[in-house]
Amino acid sequence: MDSFGDAVASATRVTPGNALRPEDIALQDSAPREAVARYALQLGDDALILAQRLSHWISRGPELEEDVALGNIALDQLGHARSFLSYAGKAWGRTEDDLAYFREEEEFTSLHLVEQPNGDFAETMVRGLFMALYQHQLYARLLESADETIAAISAKALKEVDYHLEHAELWTLRLGRGTEESARRMRRALDRLWPYTDELFQDEPLHDELEGIAVRPSTLRADWEARLQDILDRSGLAVPEVPLALCLGRRGEHSEHLGYILAEMQVLARKHPGATW
Amino acid sequence: MDSFGDAVASATRVTPGNALRPEDIALQDSAPREAVARYALQLGDDALILAQRLSHWISRGPELEEDVALGNIALDQLGHARSFLSYAGKAWGRTEDDLAYFREEEEFTSLHLVEQPNGDFAETMVRGLFMALYQHQLYARLLESADETIAAISAKALKEVDYHLEHAELWTLRLGRGTEESARRMRRALDRLWPYTDELFQDEPLHDELEGIAVRPSTLRADWEARLQDILDRSGLAVPEVPLALCLGRRGEHSEHLGYILAEMQVLARKHPGATW
Repeated sequence: MDSFGDAVASATRVTPGNALRPEDIALQDSAPREAVARYALQLGDDALILAQRLSHWISRGPELEEDVALGNIALDQLGHARSFLSYAGKAWGRTEDDLAYFREEEEFTSLHLVEQPNGDFAETMVRGLFMALYQHQLYARLLESADETIAAISAKALKEVDYHLEHAELWTLRLGRGTEESARRMRRALDRLWPYTDELFQDEPLHDELEGIAVRPSTLRADWEARLQDILDRSGLAVPEVPLALCLGRRGEHSEHLGYILAEMQVLARKHPGATW
Repeated sequence: MDSFGDAVASATRVTPGNALRPEDIALQDSAPREAVARYALQLGDDALILAQRLSHWISRGPELEEDVALGNIALDQLGHARSFLSYAGKAWGRTEDDLAYFREEEEFTSLHLVEQPNGDFAETMVRGLFMALYQHQLYARLLESADETIAAISAKALKEVDYHLEHAELWTLRLGRGTEESARRMRRALDRLWPYTDELFQDEPLHDELEGIAVRPSTLRADWEARLQDILDRSGLAVPEVPLALCLGRRGEHSEHLGYILAEMQVLARKHPGATW
């Protein structure tokens, strides 16, 4: 335990409490096996696409204060994406940047929920609430992952998602119990986005290979619904009764939205491949 | 001095060391006089437009790590803008959001340098270096401002601009001494942006009314040039010899670029005026 005091020696040490940076992950000797890398890729892709969507609010919303909050959440998510992608990439000899900028649409494994348009502020908040609740439970469970890098990334991410959840919950309460118009917009946003929540809880064959490492998404559902129900109750809102949609983002099947997101995200890196000038 | 321990009582206290938030400024009883407000508006507009430009890099650059760095700088600048605009707005009964979203192009007082397109990474870095050097010296001098709100905002901003300057300097060294191509791009960026630096140091009649409160821009020039010269020397680059341009951003005369920036920034707030749903 003495060596905890040695910052240099412990810079790349993997412990759940350690703030593991993407640079540290890239320097690690050990690469994850294929299944672990594919799992990390999924978590990274969710965070990356959500970050891309949220960053659009910076200086473009109706309130500067809120732009700063959403911008900070975007940067947190981008940080989580960097860590997960760095780790995944080690399995294939690819960097976080390779994975972000040089994959085709069908290689992205993100959920359909995160690629949904920002819509109005209510829609951004509902998407944020759904994802923050989900990521909060997921990362909390992943603290126990037998893969110590995934556990360490999750530990750092959890602290930040804690704030994202608080932010989304406060806005849900405020808008739900606000004016008639704000409640109407929240109901509309809930109805629009509810169909995409089913995908969050679908188990895949991949999870069978990752016992003790990954969290089985279906096991998160009951808690997620209970916590959501509680927040919506207190906000004067209800869980929507619209049908759920079958989405296969994890298998690379995406809506037309992702293509536009990727075009914008990748154009510069592809124009200057290598970017080593 | 005892009351420093009282967080509530000191929340809106204005001292140079205090982290004064825009919300605190909005709550202050005293409004600045017209000339002070116009000065704060200039500083806020520079930061706001620079933030808007920089935020475009988030998830859109050639490196995720750098996107995070530029995103953080954008959010810092947006924070400074919020403080200066909140303070300026008190003179006219307007909020930071009114000033950001409901002014016309000719009412914006930002420098032409900050509205210049991002261009390639070298151009963003050169613009960043010019502005960070400028804001660093300006805010350091404004610590002595007789207007204690401007001094307090500057104190908080200075700490952050310190990092922006370090970031810009490191990249200038890296690109200047990097490959032939990176040095060529830096020289091109310096040539392109140099003309806009003259405006940074133009005294206006406004400064005559603000003795002891504002910094006379012309008095920053010698130091700015000396520090720039030093950084460029160490980077194997030279101060450009291209002619300077006459720009009148402080008087509301802008290039065609600002119109596009404002259109993007203001569209949502104007579509939902009041935004109180």
